[in-house]
Amino acid sequence: MSTRAADRPQGVYSPVLTPFNADLSPSVPRFVGHCRALLEQGAGLAIFGTNSEANSLSVAEKRHLLDALLDAGLPAARMMPGTGACALPDAVELTRHAVEAGCGGVLMLPPFYYKGVSDEGLFRAFAHVIERVADERLRIYLYHIPPVSGVPISLGLIDRLLGEFPGIVAGIKDSSGDWNNTAAMLRDFQPRGFDVFAGTETVLLETMRAGGAGCITATGNVNASPIVALYRSWREAGAEDRQRALNETRAIFQSYPMIPAMKAAIAQRRNDPVWATVRPPLVELDAAQSAQLAQRLAAPAA
Amino acid sequence: MSTRAADRPQGVYSPVLTPFNADLSPSVPRFVGHCRALLEQGAGLAIFGTNSEANSLSVAEKRHLLDALLDAGLPAARMMPGTGACALPDAVELTRHAVEAGCGGVLMLPPFYYKGVSDEGLFRAFAHVIERVADERLRIYLYHIPPVSGVPISLGLIDRLLGEFPGIVAGIKDSSGDWNNTAAMLRDFQPRGFDVFAGTETVLLETMRAGGAGCITATGNVNASPIVALYRSWREAGAEDRQRALNETRAIFQSYPMIPAMKAAIAQRRNDPVWATVRPPLVELDAAQSAQLAQRLAAPAA
Repeated sequence: MSTRAADRPQGVYSPVLTPFNADLSPSVPRFVGHCRALLEQGAGLAIFGTNSEANSLSVAEKRHLLDALLDAGLPAARMMPGTGACALPDAVELTRHAVEAGCGGVLMLPPFYYKGVSDEGLFRAFAHVIERVADERLRIYLYHIPPVSGVPISLGLIDRLLGEFPGIVAGIKDSSGDWNNTAAMLRDFQPRGFDVFAGTETVLLETMRAGGAGCITATGNVNASPIVALYRSWREAGAEDRQRALNETRAIFQSYPMIPAMKAAIAQRRNDPVWATVRPPLVELDAAQSAQLAQRLAAPAA
Repeated sequence: MSTRAADRPQGVYSPVLTPFNADLSPSVPRFVGHCRALLEQGAGLAIFGTNSEANSLSVAEKRHLLDALLDAGLPAARMMPGTGACALPDAVELTRHAVEAGCGGVLMLPPFYYKGVSDEGLFRAFAHVIERVADERLRIYLYHIPPVSGVPISLGLIDRLLGEFPGIVAGIKDSSGDWNNTAAMLRDFQPRGFDVFAGTETVLLETMRAGGAGCITATGNVNASPIVALYRSWREAGAEDRQRALNETRAIFQSYPMIPAMKAAIAQRRNDPVWATVRPPLVELDAAQSAQLAQRLAAPAA
């Protein structure tokens, strides 16, 4: 039984893909439209995540995109922008902007250029942002994604941050791909009010059964409704079957580079080829991959 | 015999440490003073490198620091600022600023958030910056430092960039720590006008003997004169002994976290404790390490 406050972020979040124009500038109308569609399917907006190509965007571009969502009337409480950065001034600026906008939380990468840094150094980095933003409304969700960032967030670091900044350090997205790690967080930290979000819907059911808060998952961009449906019905009969169906769809996308594949799928659905555009260093799917993806997504489940 | 144009960057460059105030803001007077001292010792200024904590600085901070050097009358031709970034708009902005300032070259990291990206994606990233900056004066030195960036620059990628942008793609800093890689670049690309800088002075003599352009080395911050002396006299008798002496000094610094150790050494020499400040996620040396470092640096060479 969850004791989570009703106004805390929970459920399914999509790390929102960032659509670009052909000249690689962000496409604001496509971004607002995609966010609106995700909200309508019941997903929250984890804008500026790994799958958003967020680190390929400048700080000014991120501020502008967040402002565009607010101007369009989308609810800030349902947004969890990524605000972590290599440079602390950037992390402070983006985090402050998100808090002042009323965002439900922020998802924060550690500074990720230097590798093999100490927990002391990472503690100081997070503490610096918290102290500079200095706003009681701040809710930080740590972002643990060592396969990409190269900078893990250890259980010891979480324990220290949670002890020093209770309430502010509010949870984590675990994209380690290591269920043992997720399980340890659920066991040790979830009871202390630290909300654990799985980094993939393939362990959504396990996460909910262990008391977790939901998932923040790439495929939430292209398969939001069925993932939200499992989140809402995980205690009910048939949950295992729904989990299996989610896994099958995920497996299709995972057999390609994920971000280009999801963008290709949206380009196909919307009949809008520009949607497939990615910023370097990513590369869009080639025509053969794109055609094969369309075929696999159209095929009835085995 | 070198056929290098006299106005091309060559010799010894220091990836200039960025001094901070106690509140973690950059200390402009200390920065200008340090740069001036390095120039007087014959070193060039590879500002905004890994050892500069450059990725811990915002774009605005980097622009401001470069402008401060120019305002102080330091020669732009002797500067090779790091301008690579995860976000292409940041790389374009910093690169354009450096070219317009008259910098001798720029040292460019690949976008380094996503790992395992293709050479095609990296080619597009560099090409994007070159095409957006669109300035014949641009000289790009690629920055190959896979142990930190996690994103290697392959020989195949260099070959393609060199073919597509001859003159603009001007060389590389090889911080792979793999002499076989440096040797391959010296063999395959140096004859095509692509200047190879070793990433450490420990292979300076080997690099010069193989036709390379010099080195860009952390220790250039704390041991510039002797490194420059070897560069200037590498063909003369006693070069091997000078190389060995350089290696011994380097080994002392390498037995600590390098950036904090170099900052501690400068703080000691200048009797200016604030110089030891680093930005998180780095952590300064503790008092015992700092005292031990001072003792080792003061000891006569064995």
